[in-house]
Amino acid sequence: MKRDIYFLKKTLELAKRAEGHTSPNPMVGAVILKNNKEISCGFHKKSGKPHAEIEAINNARINIKGATLYINLEPCCHFGRTPPCVDKIIESGIRRVVIATLDPNPVVHGKSVSKLKKAGIKVSVGCFSKQARRLNEVFFKNMEAKRPFVVVKLAQSLDGKIAAAGGESKWITGEHARKFARKLRDKYDCVLVGINTVIKDNPRLNGVKKNPYKVVIDPKLRIPKDAYILKNDSQKLIIFASTKAKKKSLKNTKVFFIKEEKGKLPVKEILSILNQHGITSVFVEGGSCTAANFFEEKLVDKVHFFIAPIILGGKSALTSIGGQGLSLRDCPEVSELRIEKIGQDMLITGYPYYDKK
Amino acid sequence: MKRDIYFLKKTLELAKRAEGHTSPNPMVGAVILKNNKEISCGFHKKSGKPHAEIEAINNARINIKGATLYINLEPCCHFGRTPPCVDKIIESGIRRVVIATLDPNPVVHGKSVSKLKKAGIKVSVGCFSKQARRLNEVFFKNMEAKRPFVVVKLAQSLDGKIAAAGGESKWITGEHARKFARKLRDKYDCVLVGINTVIKDNPRLNGVKKNPYKVVIDPKLRIPKDAYILKNDSQKLIIFASTKAKKKSLKNTKVFFIKEEKGKLPVKEILSILNQHGITSVFVEGGSCTAANFFEEKLVDKVHFFIAPIILGGKSALTSIGGQGLSLRDCPEVSELRIEKIGQDMLITGYPYYDKK
Repeated sequence: MKRDIYFLKKTLELAKRAEGHTSPNPMVGAVILKNNKEISCGFHKKSGKPHAEIEAINNARINIKGATLYINLEPCCHFGRTPPCVDKIIESGIRRVVIATLDPNPVVHGKSVSKLKKAGIKVSVGCFSKQARRLNEVFFKNMEAKRPFVVVKLAQSLDGKIAAAGGESKWITGEHARKFARKLRDKYDCVLVGINTVIKDNPRLNGVKKNPYKVVIDPKLRIPKDAYILKNDSQKLIIFASTKAKKKSLKNTKVFFIKEEKGKLPVKEILSILNQHGITSVFVEGGSCTAANFFEEKLVDKVHFFIAPIILGGKSALTSIGGQGLSLRDCPEVSELRIEKIGQDMLITGYPYYDKK
Repeated sequence: MKRDIYFLKKTLELAKRAEGHTSPNPMVGAVILKNNKEISCGFHKKSGKPHAEIEAINNARINIKGATLYINLEPCCHFGRTPPCVDKIIESGIRRVVIATLDPNPVVHGKSVSKLKKAGIKVSVGCFSKQARRLNEVFFKNMEAKRPFVVVKLAQSLDGKIAAAGGESKWITGEHARKFARKLRDKYDCVLVGINTVIKDNPRLNGVKKNPYKVVIDPKLRIPKDAYILKNDSQKLIIFASTKAKKKSLKNTKVFFIKEEKGKLPVKEILSILNQHGITSVFVEGGSCTAANFFEEKLVDKVHFFIAPIILGGKSALTSIGGQGLSLRDCPEVSELRIEKIGQDMLITGYPYYDKK
């Protein structure tokens, strides 16, 4: 049992090496053990490339007959861009397979386990499953909720302001925190902001290593012609506007016109459209009202609060999460809190959940 | 040197045993060492009772001639409620005195050290002084700034709200945090709130072990007749009203009428009056506007932010620190941050400072 945990943990570490590169696939790592010795390992490097278990099988320099395979996700049993891994495992003569968690994809879910068992292979499932689900939280959300995983990132003062009463917002947090936030963008498929953020800050919204899609909620199609993301990055730009907006032609840029509900573009529909276009995760960076829309629709899966150790005060200063607001009963509670220091700032990370006792 | 730190640390621990009981005196502890062995110790138990060094000298069961005295604050050299400790130290035959920090009281400051040296005693000062000053932060502020030490305590959501958009504020934080906050009241001479908090919440404002003074900023003298603190605790109640307020007789309760400045009662004058009446520390518990007044006047020495892991949202929801607000340039930065978990909530403690580079 202790050995199983040790090697499953190792599969997670291997899997994580490809963070940011496997989308829309999950991150998977595999370790092969024979006579209590690790003889091979592998991980899924990129969507379209061999799966982790195949990498591990191919990397083995000795015969793996009778070996044990550790893997953080149930192997596939269907033809995707690569042939089913289950068959290859059976062929290989592996005698035991230890899986952290079942694949949430209904095409696979439990089916591969059955197939392995039918072939006389011993299978253990479920140990270390919470951590394995967290590692692939984007993938699990996609499969189980049929929508992108939504992360909200904020940078605020201790008293919850994202700008001073006079309007200044550059910068609330320090350089380290800002760099860290840029790095976070590398993990997700797109960065989403409201049009006010574009008009006020004219941001670039790039990651450190990646240039993610930029999504702007712009009901009246007010995006300025010289906005950086429109001028320099139009092919990576997706705009959501209201059906009531005056049409404008924006070369190279995808504009979706959707119907307003209660005077707002419904974020649920925005997510649904993004999902149809292969976006698996959305990194929401504000502003105050945009973030609020996602919270009010119970569509936030993860939060990153960067908190600067300053006190701005101001009844009219912009609050980090505005909108209508929620009652104490309906507001989300943030669980699995992690608190870190990033430079002089703090970072509080957690998972909002809406079904309180 | 290492030994000096060890025993000075011990003096702080001893001193702290009387926390909440020595006001307006500082907390002081003393240890006596002879031939590298601790032979006695003591601490100042209560204002009017013997000072720590006298306790330690009296507690010694062997002759202390030639011994070393460790103490976290410079001994006194004046007649207060007890005779000068310096003379007693000289008489005792102690050969070395190790002092963490000088007494900020101008009547004593450095004078006792000179007197000890003149008597041929070896004196070391300054090791562990930062910690020693922090222990007696109230006393040092009183002496150096001639005003009470001001602590602001808040209970807010992650996004800085002290009430939901609908007005509910009971409760933002959990039971553990609320109990912890009540315990904090025991450390200070009075609890201060704005009249809106009294009207809205009708609080008792008591500590766990102590019944501190209650101070209410009530410009128009609107305090309800049946307010708990007026009805049950009038002798411990101090009200500040505007000179423009309609006079009202409030039996047993001290009411100070002061002149408004820019439409507000100036908190600087309130602190000055409290200081004159022997109040050494003020625990400000809100609301939003009252806390802001102290921040805007740069009169907050310490903050306790209790943060509940919930997200309330709401552009119009009450923010923890309201008022006019400060610019990024003028706003205080909070230093010496300490982050703790209290039940399901977080507590961020620190010291605001206003002079940024």
